Parts: sequence; C-alpha cells; structure tokens
Amino acid sequence: MFLVEGNKTITELFNSNFKIKEIFSTDPQKLDRANVPVTHISDNELKKISFLQNPKDSVAVCYLNEEKKLNDGNLQLVLDGIQDPGNMGTIIRLADWFGIEQIICSKDTVDFYNPKVIMASMGSFTRVNVIYSDLVEYLSGTKNINIGTDMDGENIYSFSRPEKMNLILGNEGNGMRPETEKLLEKSVMIPRFGKSQSTESLNVSMAAGIILGQLFSERE
Amino acid sequence: MFLVEGNKTITELFNSNFKIKEIFSTDPQKLDRANVPVTHISDNELKKISFLQNPKDSVAVCYLNEEKKLNDGNLQLVLDGIQDPGNMGTIIRLADWFGIEQIICSKDTVDFYNPKVIMASMGSFTRVNVIYSDLVEYLSGTKNINIGTDMDGENIYSFSRPEKMNLILGNEGNGMRPETEKLLEKSVMIPRFGKSQSTESLNVSMAAGIILGQLFSERE
Repeated sequence: MFLVEGNKTITELFNSNFKIKEIFSTDPQKLDRANVPVTHISDNELKKISFLQNPKDSVAVCYLNEEKKLNDGNLQLVLDGIQDPGNMGTIIRLADWFGIEQIICSKDTVDFYNPKVIMASMGSFTRVNVIYSDLVEYLSGTKNINIGTDMDGENIYSFSRPEKMNLILGNEGNGMRPETEKLLEKSVMIPRFGKSQSTESLNVSMAAGIILGQLFSERE
Repeated sequence: MFLVEGNKTITELFNSNFKIKEIFSTDPQKLDRANVPVTHISDNELKKISFLQNPKDSVAVCYLNEEKKLNDGNLQLVLDGIQDPGNMGTIIRLADWFGIEQIICSKDTVDFYNPKVIMASMGSFTRVNVIYSDLVEYLSGTKNINIGTDMDGENIYSFSRPEKMNLILGNEGNGMRPETEKLLEKSVMIPRFGKSQSTESLNVSMAAGIILGQLFSERE
C-alpha cells in the first residue's frame, strides 16, 4: 500500500486506475464517494499519520498497481539511478505535461511510491506509467534511439529529434553508468551562456525540462 | 550578515565581491586563505550552527552586500512575489547558466539571503545581481519590453524575442499582481502536450527554465 495526501491529489485518484482502500480526513464531506470508506479524524490524528511537516486535509491509503510495461512510445524517459525523490516527482510531472506516457527506471532508481515522489509529482503520478527494469536489457532491445545527456553532447538547439527516441537521464552525482553509456546512439547538451567558469551543471530535472521544451518545439 | 555552507560554495565566495568575516570548519586545511580567519570546530559544533539537516564541512559568516542596481540588461528576470526559497535559488541558478546578470524582485519576494535560497542557488548567488524594488515604479520606467507568463499568452515556440526584454514571473499560488499585469506588453505560455484535463501548471522555476531555454534558441 502507499499513501496519497491532500484532497486535491486524492480527487485525481478517483479518475485513475489506482484503487483507494480507505481515506482518513479532517473534512470528509469534500470526499463524498460511496465506494470508498472515509473516516473522520482530528487535526492532531492527521498530524500523526501524515508524512508532511504541514499536513493537508486528508490521507488516502491506496493499493500498489501491478507493473505493466506499455509498448515503447515515440518519446520515453529512461532514468539511470535518479536518487532524489523531488527530482523523480518533478520528472513525472514533466512527462505528464509533455504527454510522455511511460518512464523506464533502473532498479536502483528511487521508489515511485516514496511519499516524497508522490507529493512532488502533484497528481501526475496517476497519468504516467513508471516501470522498473534492467536497463542494459531494455536499452539493448528497444527500437527507440537511445539519446543521453552529457556536457560533451550535441547542442540541443541543433539536434534533430528522431521519430522514436529514449531520453536517458543519469544519477544526480555520478551521471549514467558506463554500461548504460555504451548503449547510447548519441548525447545532447544544453549550451551554457553564462561566463561562469564554475563546473556546476543544471539540476537533472531542470535539464530534462529544458531539453523536453526544445524537443517539443519541432512539434509546433 | 548571512551564512554560506559547504567548502564548495565557500570557495566560490573567494572569487566574488562578497566579503567573508570568518569561517568555522571541521576541515580547515581545505580553506587555507591568509586573509580570512578560520576556526577549527568539531562535527558536533557544526551541527549546532548549521541550518542543514546534514551539515557539510564548513560555515562561513559573510557581510551583506550593498544593493546596487546595474543598467538594464538585454534579458532580465523580474520576480513578483516568489515565496519559495527553493524556487528563488533555482531561478538564480538558471540566470547564472544563461548569463542573465540581474534579477529585479518585488519587495515581498523571499529574501535573497535566506539560507535556503543561498543553498539552492549552489554558488550562483555570487554571480547574479539581485535587487529589491517597487515593481510598478521599475516596470513603468524601464525601456525593456515587459513580458509575463500566462496560460493565455502567446505560444513560446512562435514568440519572437525582442532586443531588450524583462521576463516577469509571478507568485507560486496567485501569479502576478494586477498592478504588475497592467504593465505587461504581452505574455507567453508553454503549450501542454499531455492530454490531462488537470489544471495543474508547471512549477514557476521549471516554467522559467523552459522559457529561457526557448528564448536562447534564437541566439544559437
């Protein structure tokens, strides 16, 4: 089971393929659904069961979905060891925004059902299919072109998007694993316009957003 | 005064116009600088003075810089009531990446020297000039074209960047103030490709990143 917090996101669950077991709420009227039991609790009780520093109004206990891989889409994200739940949630939200149906994760990527991932995805987790897989096996077998991100890659502004591609994003500190890098057709990069000599790069989810923004400019 | 944590960012201060008063470090050798007093402290002492859950190696006590407005650059960011320190830090980091020299903030925007802003900016705060100002006065007087962000705005993919512009970003929950909106020439938006009917928008710093990525594509 996993927890979803806040009426706003819980309402999105009603229209998804996730099943809710029960809801604990300080304001149950707002969640009037005949088919889900709702228990009225106090603010203090909510505080005790919530993972949030500032708990919202309700907590829903949900069943895990069975993992089921969809056929490869024209543009998929592949995560190689993303560790930060905030980054993972933000990337799921980006996928939802750009209509990317599926994200393939290495087995050591942060758990999709981590409460911080669910929270950061803001309900987008109900609309994006996330599966965990052996990346070497997946990347070797896919018919999508595997494109990585790397400061030595091709400038994203001149990169021409292939018909079917995977965008592979690496771990926050260490980037992609060598086994993953070996299976890339090429890499792309976002040029830096600032004069700073600092080696600091953009955060992985921000880089993903800027790259996706650019990849979709061709679709307009 | 304000605090900067971690040797990596403290080292960036040495090459900036910020002045350090003193440093407290668990590993002082790494910060060998004749002109700044460094006090050796224990891990436990660091834990007590750090704002971080997982303190790094050092804390530097720094003098606030005097605010000094630069002339308007060709592309400036204007923040109208951004409240979240993580967003503010991320936006400063974006400005640094894209070589944007100055950010103009409304007086109620989160404090630049907030430890979480400094931390999220990852050293970029040393390279971007951030000033707080009456926005109505500033936006009325500037010769830059004032461009907002709004879901009803012009598609960013067909938007042609003016020679000199301000990109105005509004508060996380409420967007721009009406007084600010009145002073806009136009607004831009990022089209949504996902099929979701959810009203959820992108986080303000992510939207800023995607818009900047697009504005700079013309510079390539």
